[in-house]
Amino acid sequence: MSEILKGKPVAEAIKERCIAKMKDLADRSITPTLALFRVGEKQDDLSYEKGIGKCFDEIGIAIRRYVFDIDTDPEELYRAIKDANDDENIHGILVFRPLPKHFDEEKVKALISPQKDVDGCNDLSLAGIFMNKDLGFAPCTAQAVMEILHHYRIETSGKKAVVLGRSLVIGKPVSMLLLNEDATVTVCHSRTKEIETAASGADILVCATGKTNSIGPSYFNEHQTVIDVGIGFDPIRNKLCGDVIFEEAAGFVQAITPVPGGVGSVTTAVLASHVIEAALKR
Amino acid sequence: MSEILKGKPVAEAIKERCIAKMKDLADRSITPTLALFRVGEKQDDLSYEKGIGKCFDEIGIAIRRYVFDIDTDPEELYRAIKDANDDENIHGILVFRPLPKHFDEEKVKALISPQKDVDGCNDLSLAGIFMNKDLGFAPCTAQAVMEILHHYRIETSGKKAVVLGRSLVIGKPVSMLLLNEDATVTVCHSRTKEIETAASGADILVCATGKTNSIGPSYFNEHQTVIDVGIGFDPIRNKLCGDVIFEEAAGFVQAITPVPGGVGSVTTAVLASHVIEAALKR
Repeated sequence: MSEILKGKPVAEAIKERCIAKMKDLADRSITPTLALFRVGEKQDDLSYEKGIGKCFDEIGIAIRRYVFDIDTDPEELYRAIKDANDDENIHGILVFRPLPKHFDEEKVKALISPQKDVDGCNDLSLAGIFMNKDLGFAPCTAQAVMEILHHYRIETSGKKAVVLGRSLVIGKPVSMLLLNEDATVTVCHSRTKEIETAASGADILVCATGKTNSIGPSYFNEHQTVIDVGIGFDPIRNKLCGDVIFEEAAGFVQAITPVPGGVGSVTTAVLASHVIEAALKR
Repeated sequence: MSEILKGKPVAEAIKERCIAKMKDLADRSITPTLALFRVGEKQDDLSYEKGIGKCFDEIGIAIRRYVFDIDTDPEELYRAIKDANDDENIHGILVFRPLPKHFDEEKVKALISPQKDVDGCNDLSLAGIFMNKDLGFAPCTAQAVMEILHHYRIETSGKKAVVLGRSLVIGKPVSMLLLNEDATVTVCHSRTKEIETAASGADILVCATGKTNSIGPSYFNEHQTVIDVGIGFDPIRNKLCGDVIFEEAAGFVQAITPVPGGVGSVTTAVLASHVIEAALKR
């Protein structure tokens, strides 16, 4: 039976480290604070916001919510982000994306100052990941993958890591994070031929294709660690699921993250750790 | 016998495209101009400078040389770069590196404005490569690899590309450029295990290890295109050579770049094309 790499203990360990750092901040009379920008009332955003609220409460991180109607003049959002950049009592800025179409998302990402870009969407934050240089923060989900590997002491150095997906939110940054930790990294995508051959040769397989329930036995080997970044909905079984057909992997591979309860449950704790780091760097 | 992918015809084709664009610039009374910064009299720098001079003369690109003694106060260099940033008659800036140790190379790279960073060393230039976004220019050598592949119509989409080396000058950017053109990319490095197995499975093998004459038959297959980015000196045979043991590859693989006369001979033409692009964007 495969080891199930649950996210919860990883998140708990991150939160404990966060709480330990809160003392330093309290000594300096700093309350770490996230400015959270939401446009509209999308269900995904609301449940992520709820998760952040719960996690941040436990640690003692403050949240300032900026909520805009879906038909708000984009300039209002841009101005509010600029104000949050300038406000020294705000340490991190998170804007829920995707934004409605009349907002210029590229502009929004560029507006957030890299020091406060706690979800690593800014060009300079991503440049830092690429260059392995401390310019900003990694996207939280990409870093959550690394946190899981670290927590469960899964060696990356010299290991073959195959990443399925090349998005700027997951695929590319997680590839660079793995490379920075000395894995031999292969990036596969929709144009890759013989993708199963590549995947099944991996020691660590990171699945971020966005295609629900699409990755089956031909992608696996029995010594493999499978990290499933996908999150989708299976209408037949009426439940959340990942990119991986969990039942077909779970008895076979060495270790696998579940969905839900895997990568997704670590992301919010990573976000918290970024807000605290940003506050400590002030 | 392998096809020898000579750099010269690639460079000539790039130069022709440059010359075609000079007319547009002449119509706007613009002389594309490179500011070239050299500290000391290193042989490598001098011969690169000579090559640039010859190539740029042919096209009609002007060069302003800024030469500093090796014991110059670094502030003088920094100030001169800032002035070149502000000078609207200068379109590209190139600083020969590595600089002597008392210069802050990170600072120098950050000083050059991305619009003028024609050798892609700035954080934002590299972020552009990573994000596949038009933020600046690619490092010339990394792009020279792609120019060779394009010129000789070597398909990248869906092909397995293996890059040996993960430096910020070659390995990482060329990996991203290949990924942006739909190759399935594996990045190998000093910690990679079974590197020959990975390399010999590649359709396109890019060698940028910096280890002269180190890549032999176990890295190859007969359908492979080998791009040798290395440049070193073989003291026994008293001649320049690459990372690849050329004699052992040349009869076996599908196609290979020679050293000298391969990638290196394309780099200067790529630099010229960047200066012209920068001038056109003004």
